[in-house]
Amino acid sequence: MIDKLAIIGVGLMGGSLARALRERDQVGEIVGYGRGIANLDEAIELAVIDHAEISIAAAVEAADMVVVAVPVGSTREVLEALAPAIGPDTIVTDVGSVKQTVVEAARATLGPRFTSFVPGHPIAGTEQSGARAARGDLYESRRVVLTPEPETDPAATERVAAMWRAVGAEVVAMPAADHDRVLAASSHLPHALAYALVDMLVRLDDHRAIFDCAGGGFRDFTRIAASDPVMWRDICLANREPLLALLEQYQENLRLLAEALERADGDWLRETFGRAKRAREGLHGPSDGE
Amino acid sequence: MIDKLAIIGVGLMGGSLARALRERDQVGEIVGYGRGIANLDEAIELAVIDHAEISIAAAVEAADMVVVAVPVGSTREVLEALAPAIGPDTIVTDVGSVKQTVVEAARATLGPRFTSFVPGHPIAGTEQSGARAARGDLYESRRVVLTPEPETDPAATERVAAMWRAVGAEVVAMPAADHDRVLAASSHLPHALAYALVDMLVRLDDHRAIFDCAGGGFRDFTRIAASDPVMWRDICLANREPLLALLEQYQENLRLLAEALERADGDWLRETFGRAKRAREGLHGPSDGE
Repeated sequence: MIDKLAIIGVGLMGGSLARALRERDQVGEIVGYGRGIANLDEAIELAVIDHAEISIAAAVEAADMVVVAVPVGSTREVLEALAPAIGPDTIVTDVGSVKQTVVEAARATLGPRFTSFVPGHPIAGTEQSGARAARGDLYESRRVVLTPEPETDPAATERVAAMWRAVGAEVVAMPAADHDRVLAASSHLPHALAYALVDMLVRLDDHRAIFDCAGGGFRDFTRIAASDPVMWRDICLANREPLLALLEQYQENLRLLAEALERADGDWLRETFGRAKRAREGLHGPSDGE
Repeated sequence: MIDKLAIIGVGLMGGSLARALRERDQVGEIVGYGRGIANLDEAIELAVIDHAEISIAAAVEAADMVVVAVPVGSTREVLEALAPAIGPDTIVTDVGSVKQTVVEAARATLGPRFTSFVPGHPIAGTEQSGARAARGDLYESRRVVLTPEPETDPAATERVAAMWRAVGAEVVAMPAADHDRVLAASSHLPHALAYALVDMLVRLDDHRAIFDCAGGGFRDFTRIAASDPVMWRDICLANREPLLALLEQYQENLRLLAEALERADGDWLRETFGRAKRAREGLHGPSDGE
């Protein structure tokens, strides 16, 4: 049970957590802070939060749990603002898609309170954004990765893990560097590739016919290209080393694909596509009804 | 109304058309032909077809509509086999994802009956295959592209168009070369990119953690990599010139992306991602409930 929850950034992620905790009676008061007044007004109107504060310091005052749910590029300034205002029993966590830069920012800004900071990343979300997109079931059967550092208070980690379990998520822990390398592959590279493809196609002369002839496969493949550009700019910059390494490797794979097409090598294509199909078919889980 | 429909290749596409026509009382007898006996038995058991024939010649005899629904690499041999067996009033169409090679094969094999061949491509389908995957609603609100040649009998084109409209599809016509260029962009390139990505990831040391941490975005992005490898080998080979041209262009776009990441160019990333988001958001339609 959380007495006072402060959500810094009341978007899809923060708003959905607020809704989920409220629906399950896991929280007393929910305070929101964000830079967009219209979005905060909407969050109050939709009962995602109870009320909003005009400063981070006021929002986190006497909170027992603070969830930072802003684009990762804004995390450092948020942590700077809340550092002097949090109480001795306040736990701080975040939902950022990149963890090493967040840990560095927390270490640099929170001082002795760094032990109460639990880096987190719920692997959930849609291409939608804003408080209006918040859903109480967003985290059900989803995985949440926590990346506690050696200094992190185990009791703080356990409280954050319990919060996520309470809203239906499965919690795992791993080092921040592992998280960033793995997520560069499973999430950041696919987003970058989808953005690059849609941006290329929309600039072709044929683009109207191309989009008119888009089938379900194209819609699925490119859905993530409708994600928030600022959020994804921040993620790509924050995790650019692992992302660049994978992008380079992918470019090498595309060179091999192009060469196979050049020489009309049906065996190569069938083997490569078959290996991918078997791997993709192994990716079944309860979380998306496949 | 079709008196006798012959489906050559009773998979997802052919089977779904059979089901859809039957459910709407648009067809008398449905005969199937295919190389997999187990699949044909299943198609009969599931009432996708009425009965099966052991030769193409027997299947198409006295049929007023023949639908060739085999991987595009097998279309030519199917047309060769049915050419001597079709009657003067038989209309032949196909569902291949590439149209120029199909038109060439039909022109080379059908002789004077080429005028009764209507090249077609329903833009529908899932990553599943086989008669078991057939669904009567597969073509509802989907687009079907017909690419009649100058010699094609307009009455034949109209009958094929009417068949597709009867199962809920929207029919458009365009030259085969335009179709192939457009579909290389909207379908063939995305499939090749998804296969290449999944094949790369499964060969990484981290692959288990990567697949474990796959969120909805990854699942959407890679769903098409579970498509049938033989079908997609054939499509990529049959349409390799437009596909290679686009792949080259995409590689150039990835080079620009990598350079932007190298120099940590947030403005470039935000602009590119934003342009893609706006384009992708324009892709709303009744067909997938977005």
